[in-house]
Amino acid sequence: MKITLIGAGNVATHLALALKIAGHEIDAVVSRTSLSANKLADRLNNTMQADGTCTGVCNDSALTKAFTIEDFKGNDSDIFLISVKDDAVRELAQRLVPLAPNALWVHTAGSLPMDIIEAEHVGVFYPMQTFSIDKHVDMTKVSLFIESKTCEEELLELARSITEHVYRLDSEGRRHLHLAAVFACNFANHCFALSETLLKEQGLPFKVMLPLIDETADKAHAMSPIDGQTGPAVRGDEGIMDSQLELLADKPIYAEIYRLMSKSIQTLSNNNR
Amino acid sequence: MKITLIGAGNVATHLALALKIAGHEIDAVVSRTSLSANKLADRLNNTMQADGTCTGVCNDSALTKAFTIEDFKGNDSDIFLISVKDDAVRELAQRLVPLAPNALWVHTAGSLPMDIIEAEHVGVFYPMQTFSIDKHVDMTKVSLFIESKTCEEELLELARSITEHVYRLDSEGRRHLHLAAVFACNFANHCFALSETLLKEQGLPFKVMLPLIDETADKAHAMSPIDGQTGPAVRGDEGIMDSQLELLADKPIYAEIYRLMSKSIQTLSNNNR
Repeated sequence: MKITLIGAGNVATHLALALKIAGHEIDAVVSRTSLSANKLADRLNNTMQADGTCTGVCNDSALTKAFTIEDFKGNDSDIFLISVKDDAVRELAQRLVPLAPNALWVHTAGSLPMDIIEAEHVGVFYPMQTFSIDKHVDMTKVSLFIESKTCEEELLELARSITEHVYRLDSEGRRHLHLAAVFACNFANHCFALSETLLKEQGLPFKVMLPLIDETADKAHAMSPIDGQTGPAVRGDEGIMDSQLELLADKPIYAEIYRLMSKSIQTLSNNNR
Repeated sequence: MKITLIGAGNVATHLALALKIAGHEIDAVVSRTSLSANKLADRLNNTMQADGTCTGVCNDSALTKAFTIEDFKGNDSDIFLISVKDDAVRELAQRLVPLAPNALWVHTAGSLPMDIIEAEHVGVFYPMQTFSIDKHVDMTKVSLFIESKTCEEELLELARSITEHVYRLDSEGRRHLHLAAVFACNFANHCFALSETLLKEQGLPFKVMLPLIDETADKAHAMSPIDGQTGPAVRGDEGIMDSQLELLADKPIYAEIYRLMSKSIQTLSNNNR
């Protein structure tokens, strides 16, 4: 399948690399700034031309072809993957879809419904992962969620060429999934970050915490996190909880989080009995 | 070094196995119930006798020796490792220390000060890890924190025979460390648990979340969690946050956590700029 990527940020970059490894032809990377396009182009080791506002990166061929909004019509990709900031997807699609109305138009956002793109053939291709531009991610292990009314098979095939963890999920289900991911990833990472801050104050390097963090993640493979909960709250150890809250006396947000999380741990544990 | 373990719970079990692997002689495991002593004895593949209330497990020798409080004096261990529930340490030590007053008495609790044990030679041997009895833990990767006034070298040596991640830390520092561990492990795991509950409601298996959880932990090795924060809160994406809070309308604790964590993520991000 011939693919054009719209976007050159974290998700677009990791997807582009994974798609290339899977043997797909990436016709072009279209990006808002030549800087980000350059960066992804470097990564894909390809030639690239920029026109300042909209940059086309030609890939896997000797051709060097500059895309601008004006000559976008010349693009014969089967799939256009829109992987930009969530709040830019709708407007960008409105502007670009008319330039290739028969292609399959797909976005990669967990939090957006499929119909945010208006086109004959639309879909969603959501790799549920936390991407940072300079951190390698093994895409073969990513959970990938796809949705499409008219082109489900094509998207399933594309997804399965990257990872074996492919799921069909509609927009409403994906909305809940994305919320669950915010808890499991963003909020868990914030717990690490608060821990990092507490360690720093004691002059302790964050690396002392890594074996514990690794085991906490590893344990989620072996048992349900609900069942595997440990710590003073689930034991109902009021003595330690009071003593730890004392240490947070000058950190009201930390103390509030401590109280709320402890309460929630106890509630979930009681519900689960 | 000859060691007697007081306790046969999660921490005691994992420590006993690690100490045995490191080649130490475990004279005995003393436990409150014969059930838990039996279980650890099975694991250590040793003979064992029980007297109903206090059980001695002989290890690494052909000897089979029953310990009771009464014959505890016969024990010639160099180190007594007390690895029981936090609130039982003080009383247990008061009862047992007089029976071997010249030995080194050590507890394994992150949250307790060293002087909770009254003895000539006292210390702390705190493996900072989350232990579940049936989940294997690679103890060579555990961060181990030790403290002792009179026997620091012995404890350092013992700790280094198990893991290379050994640190000296006094009681006050350990108190803060333990608090940091509650955030990084117990609260992070609770975020996984809340995520699990949200997925269940959608009929999605928890395993879809595992690649994301793995990467969140893995990323903490590559960059500071403060710098590596992702998600709607750190991006200031109010649209997605409002939309996700809508999904939590009938879950007040989840909504409260969502709001508080998002606020804290933004506060930490602003402080860090």
